Amino acid sequence: MPMPQVPFDDRGLAYGDGVFETVLLRDGTPVLWDYHYARLRQGCQRLNIPLPPLEQLAAAWQSPAAAELEVLKLILTRGSGGRGYALPDALSPRLISRRVPFVANAQHWRQGVNVRICQLRLGHQPLLAGIKHLNRLENVLARQEWDDQTIAEGLLADTDGWLVEATSMNVFWQRNGELFTPELTQCGVAGTLRAALLDQGTVRESAIALDALRDVDRLWVANSVQGVWPVNTLLSETGEVLHAWSQADQDTLQVAGHQLLGYSLSSC
Amino acid sequence: MPMPQVPFDDRGLAYGDGVFETVLLRDGTPVLWDYHYARLRQGCQRLNIPLPPLEQLAAAWQSPAAAELEVLKLILTRGSGGRGYALPDALSPRLISRRVPFVANAQHWRQGVNVRICQLRLGHQPLLAGIKHLNRLENVLARQEWDDQTIAEGLLADTDGWLVEATSMNVFWQRNGELFTPELTQCGVAGTLRAALLDQGTVRESAIALDALRDVDRLWVANSVQGVWPVNTLLSETGEVLHAWSQADQDTLQVAGHQLLGYSLSSC
Repeated sequence: MPMPQVPFDDRGLAYGDGVFETVLLRDGTPVLWDYHYARLRQGCQRLNIPLPPLEQLAAAWQSPAAAELEVLKLILTRGSGGRGYALPDALSPRLISRRVPFVANAQHWRQGVNVRICQLRLGHQPLLAGIKHLNRLENVLARQEWDDQTIAEGLLADTDGWLVEATSMNVFWQRNGELFTPELTQCGVAGTLRAALLDQGTVRESAIALDALRDVDRLWVANSVQGVWPVNTLLSETGEVLHAWSQADQDTLQVAGHQLLGYSLSSC
Repeated sequence: MPMPQVPFDDRGLAYGDGVFETVLLRDGTPVLWDYHYARLRQGCQRLNIPLPPLEQLAAAWQSPAAAELEVLKLILTRGSGGRGYALPDALSPRLISRRVPFVANAQHWRQGVNVRICQLRLGHQPLLAGIKHLNRLENVLARQEWDDQTIAEGLLADTDGWLVEATSMNVFWQRNGELFTPELTQCGVAGTLRAALLDQGTVRESAIALDALRDVDRLWVANSVQGVWPVNTLLSETGEVLHAWSQADQDTLQVAGHQLLGYSLSSC
């Protein structure tokens, strides 16, 4: 299947004027689809882009599965045209998609990962916070801060120093037996696994300053494709070890998260 | 000439990972090219994208001119690939361009325009401030705030209430005979006409709160394609008239700006 293309005047290319979803397919069926659809709908509402009918979206996973696990990426742009930033008179959103086989990193599940704190601070923009829009330069720049393969993710705080997310995952922490994840009202992407964990009451929203992270009982990064990675070591912006956690036997967050995603440690 | 396309995995489309320039061509020759090139170079440095050789950029205006005035749009993306936000091992930036005939709005030059204050506040991101990157959702959302054809532009302030820019132009004001434009260290696009006016000493950088705008002696919006538009009326977010200026005969900013662009009032 040839790779889809978009023309020069597509507003997704010109301005990042659109949204996307990255969906885990298990045997060709999307996992947590209701949450992906809800976020897509919310993104379209915020940007004022008409949401395509569900059947059009579902066509992206109608062909036979190429592997047990695949990642489906959907990009929905506002479509072509308009004079400058003003909207075109006739709007015709453009939906394109691509599926690639996926293998989860079970080693990260079992052994945990090292993460670092990024120097970049996320700017506040409540109108764009939470949705998965195509303006992702902050994430791209943050991800360029390190190329050490032993560091799996980078943690991002906002301009006021509050923890927000990792470059491509959400963040969770445990304190006094309770599980938390940052509120995402000013910036950050509200992941679908995070949404499902909130809905079932496994975690709840709270705020934590970057400086307080070394005092938490446990720390994780997670998303709906990779699953849940416990954090072993937290490194500073300059590479010093700020804290190391020893992994306990019972990982409540990973058990709950992997149940939602259909992952089991033994199956990989 | 067919419209250029980019593939699904182009990072300009996926993340807005790239920069662009909108250049006025007069008889096929770029106007203020040194300033466009300088901003392109600065954008590439900030994003860590290799700048193509000048000859490759110049190929975009080598064909014969289709009109006395044209607008050339150059889009430079980081190219295809990479796992998520991480950079691909082999980088191959993608340069595409398009030329369209252009007619300047001489009525706006002569009669001035109405502008409104936008509700959206620009977030702070010093790493992206000034450059013309492809993450322009804030501008797109701000431009959606009005569809009254008698309003030519919308003024944008940052989250602290400081004036930054208009949705697709820079802003200038006069006070006690001196001309000013906002510093752009936290957000906003540093226009090439603005840069040339700063270089020649016609204007200098200063800061002004949105609330203080009604007290300035004159107000303008300007860019390197449209030229310099004097502001007649400033409207609030809700459409009330905050201030009206009567246009004086001698317009120092427009004279200086249009000399840089080769525009003369009599020629249009």
